[in-house]
Amino acid sequence: MTTSTVPAEHHGLDHDRIRAEVDAVLSAFLRHKARTAAGQKLPTEVTTVLRDFLAVGGKRIRPLLCVTGWHAAGGKNRPHALVQAAASLEMFHAFCLIHDDIMDNSATRRGQPAVHRTLASHHGQGRTTSAADRLGKSAAVLVGDIALAWSDELLHTAGLDTRRLGEVLPLVDAMRTEVMYGQYLDVTAAGTPTDDIERALAICRYKTAKYTIERPLHIGAALAGADQRLLDTLSAFALPLGEAFQLRDDLLGVFGDPRRTGKPTLDDLRDGKHTVLIAHAMRHADEARRQILRTLLGNPHLDESAADHLRRILTAVGAPAAVEDMIRERHDAARHAIESGSIPAGTAALLLDMARQATARTT
Amino acid sequence: MTTSTVPAEHHGLDHDRIRAEVDAVLSAFLRHKARTAAGQKLPTEVTTVLRDFLAVGGKRIRPLLCVTGWHAAGGKNRPHALVQAAASLEMFHAFCLIHDDIMDNSATRRGQPAVHRTLASHHGQGRTTSAADRLGKSAAVLVGDIALAWSDELLHTAGLDTRRLGEVLPLVDAMRTEVMYGQYLDVTAAGTPTDDIERALAICRYKTAKYTIERPLHIGAALAGADQRLLDTLSAFALPLGEAFQLRDDLLGVFGDPRRTGKPTLDDLRDGKHTVLIAHAMRHADEARRQILRTLLGNPHLDESAADHLRRILTAVGAPAAVEDMIRERHDAARHAIESGSIPAGTAALLLDMARQATARTT
Repeated sequence: MTTSTVPAEHHGLDHDRIRAEVDAVLSAFLRHKARTAAGQKLPTEVTTVLRDFLAVGGKRIRPLLCVTGWHAAGGKNRPHALVQAAASLEMFHAFCLIHDDIMDNSATRRGQPAVHRTLASHHGQGRTTSAADRLGKSAAVLVGDIALAWSDELLHTAGLDTRRLGEVLPLVDAMRTEVMYGQYLDVTAAGTPTDDIERALAICRYKTAKYTIERPLHIGAALAGADQRLLDTLSAFALPLGEAFQLRDDLLGVFGDPRRTGKPTLDDLRDGKHTVLIAHAMRHADEARRQILRTLLGNPHLDESAADHLRRILTAVGAPAAVEDMIRERHDAARHAIESGSIPAGTAALLLDMARQATARTT
Repeated sequence: MTTSTVPAEHHGLDHDRIRAEVDAVLSAFLRHKARTAAGQKLPTEVTTVLRDFLAVGGKRIRPLLCVTGWHAAGGKNRPHALVQAAASLEMFHAFCLIHDDIMDNSATRRGQPAVHRTLASHHGQGRTTSAADRLGKSAAVLVGDIALAWSDELLHTAGLDTRRLGEVLPLVDAMRTEVMYGQYLDVTAAGTPTDDIERALAICRYKTAKYTIERPLHIGAALAGADQRLLDTLSAFALPLGEAFQLRDDLLGVFGDPRRTGKPTLDDLRDGKHTVLIAHAMRHADEARRQILRTLLGNPHLDESAADHLRRILTAVGAPAAVEDMIRERHDAARHAIESGSIPAGTAALLLDMARQATARTT
């Protein structure tokens, strides 16, 4: 395979330029919303908070995949309507992350205070700390809700013709229901480790594979008039790849080098996150080890030495090796889907390259 | 005026039948979602909780107004697409109430446990009370998010032709942004009484007048092909009426007879809800009384005797009388808009009747 040496811009897929175009759409939209709010004496902090949240980071992976889906279906150039539809996925993702951080009670996101913390400070004056905290969370729920509503508005006002819009709306509806169910599975499973590998895989599938990869590709492809067969090819690529990506993420969350990943390796263990890695260990450990897993996982005060103990048990029962096998199988399946499909060569090469990077990464 | 004697069914607006049709659409939709979830091994409690939430009550005021808007624009009969679009407003309202109850930390809604309480019980086993509470709230945020996503899906799959759908989406987008801003103003203003009457009126306008009355009428009217002039007439009716309705609600929340309203008269005072009634009192009280208002309003332990003290101050500074004047002015304006507009007589009579009931009510 030499695909990784093909420069992205040869296929009209210069990621930096796409990111810049998406960000320009988001900025212009929020500037417009800020002006409207100011004109109606509505609080402009909503748009300020969203603007700052979107500005501090994010890889824009969903917009990039949306544009990739467009090219996979033979779409040429990069019309403004496509870029705005792609941007709507990033606004939707802001909604997801803002609500996520409230549910996880996370203090920070991308190195900055989480939105509910920013809003608690903003409205802290004259309030007790607990009243300000509660208000910060309530206001952040609403800012998230507004981001969701505005993601739709971005799509509705992208300038798509009504037939195309009609074709894309069911895909957007499916995406939203899927990620919410995935999140629901995740939230209700955390804290009580079980050996339910199927459920852990369902969380990967709904939260990551469908939401982050399959649906953005589908939406872009549908905008270029893709038929069902192409959508199926993209699913056959996206679902195993998305699962592999999440399995890698779960491995790095426990065994990764925090200096490289930038993510502390205690968080997943302390949260008792229900992953395939953990479910596999619960299934294959003897009762004594299972009992230790039950005691330590989800303990918010877990220290490094207990974490090492956990890692040794996971390794002893073969959990990381089993997850590596699952990643390899899924990467193969994703590659096969592209190689046997009918996606234009340049775009296919990019998708293969993306699959390689997403499954082999160490950060 | 003899309009109140005109039976509703003479205009194709039999409220009980419309409610039954809307409820049938919601039930069928949720049954379908439950089957799909079961088939995909996704948690069926999401649909169960939503079904139960919708079943225990609600006047379906927004769907009724949507159908009324349809007739106001000359729409005949009651096509299924209209009823489903109307039902989507009720699903959206479920989203609003579920998130509201989380933000207000309300234990009950319509005499039943609030959704976050139900879900905390459901997932309580093997968890501490505080972990179950947190999980209940997280899961309820997601159930609310799903209700919002499904309200859109109801609209998108109503069977509207794509042009009509394209005309209605901007109104739905506007409605969602407006109610979220209204809620934002409300949440961030509570607990710290001020004399900002304009802000209190803005809360009435965005949370109630636009969301509950204007936009449902607009959406129904747009589905029947209404022109901008009719939409403007409906706004000229809906905005003052909605403000009057909310002003009445605020008065009843403090001075109403709990045996008739079914609503304790301490809640608004304990929450420190920012209403026109309170803002007016803050503006017109002397400094000594203002200080008492500041101390007592928003005190979660306020008792009946302190509440009586507050009521006496509000009355002494003329706040309830001023609010009654505002209700009367707004009722007159709403009536004038209908009487000078070009809405079919039967529907106009119903709107006038509705205005009378909404502003004069004691419950």
